[in-house]
Amino acid sequence: MKLSMFDDFRLGVWARDDSIVDVTRVLPETARPSDRMSALIADWARVESEIRDASRSTGTPRSQVTFRAPQPRPSKILAAPVNHGPHREEMIAAGAFTDVPGTIEKYVAFLKAPSSIVGPDGSIEHPDPTRRIDYEAELGIVIGAPARQVSRENALSHVFGYLALIDVTMRGDEDRSYRKSFDTFTPLGPAIVTADEIPDPSVLELELRVNGRLRQKGRVADLIYDVAQLIEVYSRAMTLETGDIIASGTPDGVGPLTPGDEVSLEVSQVPPLTIPVTARDPLHQPSAPATQ
Amino acid sequence: MKLSMFDDFRLGVWARDDSIVDVTRVLPETARPSDRMSALIADWARVESEIRDASRSTGTPRSQVTFRAPQPRPSKILAAPVNHGPHREEMIAAGAFTDVPGTIEKYVAFLKAPSSIVGPDGSIEHPDPTRRIDYEAELGIVIGAPARQVSRENALSHVFGYLALIDVTMRGDEDRSYRKSFDTFTPLGPAIVTADEIPDPSVLELELRVNGRLRQKGRVADLIYDVAQLIEVYSRAMTLETGDIIASGTPDGVGPLTPGDEVSLEVSQVPPLTIPVTARDPLHQPSAPATQ
Repeated sequence: MKLSMFDDFRLGVWARDDSIVDVTRVLPETARPSDRMSALIADWARVESEIRDASRSTGTPRSQVTFRAPQPRPSKILAAPVNHGPHREEMIAAGAFTDVPGTIEKYVAFLKAPSSIVGPDGSIEHPDPTRRIDYEAELGIVIGAPARQVSRENALSHVFGYLALIDVTMRGDEDRSYRKSFDTFTPLGPAIVTADEIPDPSVLELELRVNGRLRQKGRVADLIYDVAQLIEVYSRAMTLETGDIIASGTPDGVGPLTPGDEVSLEVSQVPPLTIPVTARDPLHQPSAPATQ
Repeated sequence: MKLSMFDDFRLGVWARDDSIVDVTRVLPETARPSDRMSALIADWARVESEIRDASRSTGTPRSQVTFRAPQPRPSKILAAPVNHGPHREEMIAAGAFTDVPGTIEKYVAFLKAPSSIVGPDGSIEHPDPTRRIDYEAELGIVIGAPARQVSRENALSHVFGYLALIDVTMRGDEDRSYRKSFDTFTPLGPAIVTADEIPDPSVLELELRVNGRLRQKGRVADLIYDVAQLIEVYSRAMTLETGDIIASGTPDGVGPLTPGDEVSLEVSQVPPLTIPVTARDPLHQPSAPATQ
């Protein structure tokens, strides 16, 4: 099934004709809009059959809904740094490593702020014209049940679903988790595809286009740590909570974005994410004066 | 006022005799226990006088309650890296910088996972006997209202209160946000002191003891970026949300912790935080086998 949030953070399931059926009623009315997807995931065993039934009806045409980020506020976003061989090579070529070239085995993980999430209804705001910001196409993994000390063999049973995720990144010397956490730097969506539809995520491929031109093309099979290993490694350090998101690492082809661009990420079997790039209001740019 | 969470994540205010008065009733019953402090902060204008009245009564003696982390799940924890002159000097002496010695002006901020929070009822779990983990005494700042592009002049009006925070840190080459996000690596509490009681946080002093011996002693006045500037700088990059926490930076005297230690952090005008260090179950240590 494909699950989305739309309009006023309603919960929707995609019907066979790709129309969107409102299933907000399956949740208690007290759930906060931004918590609805986490509540749905936590209660999945109870509500799954009702949502599956709803997906067999017909809803609102996609063109008539406004898609939000399908998981607006996970408790955390973990991301895999330099987890793709060809991307590592391009980072070395770009002089990104001041000492030993690093990959995921060295860096392991970084965090992104949940406040950096934006949906297909928004835009990537370029915060500062003097700085370079890059797109990074990623497969996003949504955690379905608390995971602590999970073995690789059991890891995929902790996945609720998958989604398209762009890890927007400012280049520079600041801490990685800061450079990747500006508002709007984590576009998500428009839908989470439940894991039963993708039993083996390594078959997935990613294609990212800027203004229609192909910029990144990669295979999940080429990740250095695969999806199961990411969950194993991360859950050994910290508890992965229901609704948390893991960004699994980007292929090579990373490059800059400027206001006016339109970025589109297609992950096979997952609805595509398209989002424009805009300039942040100059009065609200981060560089002046405090960080200079 | 001093606010805590205790027992089954009840909401409490400290009375004049330091007993704890249960004020959970001021919130809708539908608030999830882990969200109660965020809900209280968001609704502060409505509930403040009722809570102030309750603080004039007498509650349960402190010795009879179990204090939890007063803010168990902020939407994010931002922390100030190397934001204290003498601590910067000790980092240089320890060889922590491979290139130019870095301070907050270079690194700006890092994130800690909210899942790393633990209260005075828990312990700091040492995850791996082969690795060094350090205490870092910090003043924690709790955000009271969404802050985006806030000027230094207005910054303190966005503070709800202050608390004692230990930024436990694993030393090593992994990404900073990972090394600082292991479960139990962010002890908090036992209380948030509302900002009206601390109009100028620069007067505060921090003392951290391990097994009763003084290890860190520093002044908030010696921060490189003070509390107002941290809020200005961080809110230029990303929205600070209600209930978010900023760790403002540690003084010099940072050193290692081993299982069996007891750590105690005293921030002037803030109730002290005392927490033991235990060994994580060896079967659940992160190093073997995945990250080696």
